[in-house]
Amino acid sequence: MTTERLETFSDGVFAIAITLLILEVRPSGGGSLAHQLLAAWPSYVAYLISFVTIGIMWVNHHAIFSLIESTTHGLLVANLLFLMCIAFLPFPTRVLAEHLQHAGTDQTTAAVFYNAFFLVTAIFYNLTWQTAAWKHRLITPSGHAAADQVSRRFWAGSPSYLIATLVGFKSVPAAIALDGALAVFYLLPRRAASS
Amino acid sequence: MTTERLETFSDGVFAIAITLLILEVRPSGGGSLAHQLLAAWPSYVAYLISFVTIGIMWVNHHAIFSLIESTTHGLLVANLLFLMCIAFLPFPTRVLAEHLQHAGTDQTTAAVFYNAFFLVTAIFYNLTWQTAAWKHRLITPSGHAAADQVSRRFWAGSPSYLIATLVGFKSVPAAIALDGALAVFYLLPRRAASS
Amino acid sequence: MTTERLETFSDGVFAIAITLLILEVRPSGGGSLAHQLLAAWPSYVAYLISFVTIGIMWVNHHAIFSLIESTTHGLLVANLLFLMCIAFLPFPTRVLAEHLQHAGTDQTTAAVFYNAFFLVTAIFYNLTWQTAAWKHRLITPSGHAAADQVSRRFWAGSPSYLIATLVGFKSVPAAIALDGALAVFYLLPRRAASS
Amino acid sequence: MTTERLETFSDGVFAIAITLLILEVRPSGGGSLAHQLLAAWPSYVAYLISFVTIGIMWVNHHAIFSLIESTTHGLLVANLLFLMCIAFLPFPTRVLAEHLQHAGTDQTTAAVFYNAFFLVTAIFYNLTWQTAAWKHRLITPSGHAAADQVSRRFWAGSPSYLIATLVGFKSVPAAIALDGALAVFYLLPRRAASS
Repeated sequence: MTTERLETFSDGVFAIAITLLILEVRPSGGGSLAHQLLAAWPSYVAYLISFVTIGIMWVNHHAIFSLIESTTHGLLVANLLFLMCIAFLPFPTRVLAEHLQHAGTDQTTAAVFYNAFFLVTAIFYNLTWQTAAWKHRLITPSGHAAADQVSRRFWAGSPSYLIATLVGFKSVPAAIALDGALAVFYLLPRRAASS
Repeated sequence: MTTERLETFSDGVFAIAITLLILEVRPSGGGSLAHQLLAAWPSYVAYLISFVTIGIMWVNHHAIFSLIESTTHGLLVANLLFLMCIAFLPFPTRVLAEHLQHAGTDQTTAAVFYNAFFLVTAIFYNLTWQTAAWKHRLITPSGHAAADQVSRRFWAGSPSYLIATLVGFKSVPAAIALDGALAVFYLLPRRAASS
Repeated sequence: MTTERLETFSDGVFAIAITLLILEVRPSGGGSLAHQLLAAWPSYVAYLISFVTIGIMWVNHHAIFSLIESTTHGLLVANLLFLMCIAFLPFPTRVLAEHLQHAGTDQTTAAVFYNAFFLVTAIFYNLTWQTAAWKHRLITPSGHAAADQVSRRFWAGSPSYLIATLVGFKSVPAAIALDGALAVFYLLPRRAASS
Repeated sequence: MTTERLETFSDGVFAIAITLLILEVRPSGGGSLAHQLLAAWPSYVAYLISFVTIGIMWVNHHAIFSLIESTTHGLLVANLLFLMCIAFLPFPTRVLAEHLQHAGTDQTTAAVFYNAFFLVTAIFYNLTWQTAAWKHRLITPSGHAAADQVSRRFWAGSPSYLIATLVGFKSVPAAIALDGALAVFYLLPRRAASS
């Protein structure tokens, strides 16, 4: 079985989850419209980080599936659980947007919840990849070296979000800044070619 | 006429219905955010079961259409009615999530409604398959044996959800546990290769 | 330019519009959940008719574009205006669902608005088709006879919805019954093969 | 890497953003339903302009990617930022719809915000295109002349929306009329063939 329909379905979930994020952005508080639009800045921050982070995951999904030559029931299931995390994204994003403005316990809860969600997503993403890459089971013959490189990068992903989650307990602005830095880091061009 | 565009359209409806589920997940009740996030557990349970159940239907849709070589007006219509059930899913999911927390008549109603929806969906899914598989009308020549195997599995699907519906009248937790067990069962690897 | 990406984009809009319909279905009124679910019947009726009607338009879109061999700027624009009608569908559907239950002026307004929307959609659909079929401009050489048959069927579509709109002024139940009959009629198998 | 999956994903975001617009259209104010439907005219105007403007951007995206023969990490990122603008669209559209009816400071804010959003979108669109077209880096050999023509047209796009933004400070009706005129202008057939 080729990976084509799996990729189409995944693209659909990515595209929808990423586009539903906007439904949670609304003018905030009272006063003039200009004031309400400015007061909605936490929504914009949460929108931006979530969109870019998931966008990068899509770009990488794109790249890693070009190395996979066939699917198994196990890969379909692992990818489905990963997509369940992606589709869940608008919820923690909304929670973060609603509580980012006022420092306090709820703000900490929101930031930790948001980053823990990214951590869980990264774990299921790695699981999906390992299902295909373990012993090069489903990797195209010409892609073994590239696959090993991807595997190394994946092991770096989950710890980053674990750190961001733990930082969130101490300082919400630092955790959010770390999320933003990770997003920008992944947006930068890379020396290695294809992903 | 090939099945390609039918599959693309179906993938779209699956992907959207599955992703819209999150719009119904919200923090629940009062108190601290941490408390509200915990109190929203019925939403998470309903999200999880609906996502995985529909995800499995997508995986199977993927598998059975690889056995079908052409479409007819009848198959398009049967598939459309099946997709109408899939697209309806966010409604019973929301109803279940809203009433799972408090035991009582409404909780029973919600669990029965939820499982009856799965029963109707399974019936229309079987109808779609039979439209193609009856006397191997639209089955690829090399797929007759695999198609017979799929047909046998389909006859097991509807009764499972009929049982879950009936169990719901007696015990809501038992019905939900049964839904979860069915989802996990279908997620497990199977001996038979392709679906 | 081939019609492939136009069809993909159209499929996306069809699939999303048809799936968003469910967001407007909610338990209605007070009392027990069972009562609320029953009282929501106008939502189910509106959902059913809108889903099937748009689903049929998708099936036909599928069929007519298999006769079109290339696109022009004019065809892209005509199809875009038609998709604007399709994407607008959840609005009149919600209006109908909210006012179907109580006889009176608002119920008449809702039914007329709903059917007038179908009329406008049918007109833009015909316009899209004529842009391609006029003098067989964009029709595949082997499809001229089939295209003429499609053209004849299109001229029947708009008057049906004009009649349903006018009937709505006199009797809402009759207009809705007519919409349902039209949907069932198009679902039935047809003697002519492919659409 | 071919552009195929990038185009599929982009089509998904376009299709979803354009279809979510309808969720913001609702009957407005009190009185009879007929009155509420008429009073909702600002929603219809905003829906129409946003749908057509984004629809045209999709048509052009379609055209310019037929000239691009491969993707780079940079092009994926630029296109992702452009899609972030497209997905953001339902928010300024809602803001405009809510404040179009009553003249005053908030109406001006809404019109300026709406047009500034189009300006930012046009800038990221141009950036995406330049990433591919600069020195014909990713352009198919046969498309160099067509690409130069597209580049010239792009330089006209951003200033149009800058002007509309500035006009919004002085006169909201004039700015909206300008948006409408731009949309109609792009809908018109063009002498140059394919885009």
